[in-house]
Amino acid sequence: MIFPSSLLENAVNEFAKLPGIGKKTALRLVLHLIRQEQGAVQHFSDTIAKMRSEIRFCTRCHNIADGPLCNICADRGRKSDTICVVENIRDVMAIEGTGQYNGTYHVLGGVVSPLDGVGPDQLPIEALVRRVREEEVKEVIFALSPTIQGDTTIFYIQKQLEPYPLTVTTIARGISFGGELEFTDELTLARSLTGRLPVGQYVGRTL
Amino acid sequence: MIFPSSLLENAVNEFAKLPGIGKKTALRLVLHLIRQEQGAVQHFSDTIAKMRSEIRFCTRCHNIADGPLCNICADRGRKSDTICVVENIRDVMAIEGTGQYNGTYHVLGGVVSPLDGVGPDQLPIEALVRRVREEEVKEVIFALSPTIQGDTTIFYIQKQLEPYPLTVTTIARGISFGGELEFTDELTLARSLTGRLPVGQYVGRTL
Repeated sequence: MIFPSSLLENAVNEFAKLPGIGKKTALRLVLHLIRQEQGAVQHFSDTIAKMRSEIRFCTRCHNIADGPLCNICADRGRKSDTICVVENIRDVMAIEGTGQYNGTYHVLGGVVSPLDGVGPDQLPIEALVRRVREEEVKEVIFALSPTIQGDTTIFYIQKQLEPYPLTVTTIARGISFGGELEFTDELTLARSLTGRLPVGQYVGRTL
Repeated sequence: MIFPSSLLENAVNEFAKLPGIGKKTALRLVLHLIRQEQGAVQHFSDTIAKMRSEIRFCTRCHNIADGPLCNICADRGRKSDTICVVENIRDVMAIEGTGQYNGTYHVLGGVVSPLDGVGPDQLPIEALVRRVREEEVKEVIFALSPTIQGDTTIFYIQKQLEPYPLTVTTIARGISFGGELEFTDELTLARSLTGRLPVGQYVGRTL
């Protein structure tokens, strides 16, 4: 790409560093910004810089936070005796989006994956065990992706939690709503069979 | 979407204002920036703000510029007696990308389109006529999109240029390289027939 201006070129190169944004898309975005009011672009730029410099991670659950605690941990209405263990912040937002969960979270920031050099020591698992001990937790729910790494992580953490009197569960794996039985892979279908529920428990069940 | 932090939410909303960026993509981009060094994000933000506040439009051809003249107009090696009329800056970059053009440009910033409320008076057509008169231009090449609006614009400008002794051309419309004849629309095929060239002129022809 041959640019008529180095200011334009630098801005396009910055946008093109973002994941999934190629040079052509970056150019389209920058040309869009050129057409906006200067104040609006300054606001865009300031909001991004402020977000990065001021954002914190919740000292309790490692979720993203504006202050020392995230909105969820700071909310007195949430049940602190239930912790849902997730991999990342997007998972928190996905579960919050269901409106079905009223406990707290623990964001691991990853899963145990020896091949990628991620051991249990790099994840805030000790902090989770400490929370279980200090906050009189009754249930830990694992909501990790159904992968070998996810299962390894669950297995490892479960071992650490064994000394404590609490229920450890994992979210159900089965056929998606709207999913067709015949196109479901065998492992999922097998798990949905072994994890079958009495119909009375299934209909209208909430947490 | 339920956000754990208003800093995050504001940043996502800013990204989601960009064309073609939805909330989910915006969230992915912001979470990517959170994982980057603070200095890198500050640089991203500063580059965008600086670009918008300092970018100029070339006083001669209305291309994007760092100073009063764009890189192309400031380049003494370019032939100033040939002007290529284009709709926007992306068209300039597309033609520059071919490496086949050594003249200057005139960026209209749009085409005559009465239905969208764009009349000839809103486009820098007078400036083009002035350039033709003052810069002893020998050829004006129209490189506008092959639409009714493009053709209307060419027709209007051509009328204004009639008093001056110069050649007025338009880029060839025909079958793309790699295009299949049988799938070409009738209008394009008809134009490529009426605009046929002697084979000797076609092979290895450059501007």
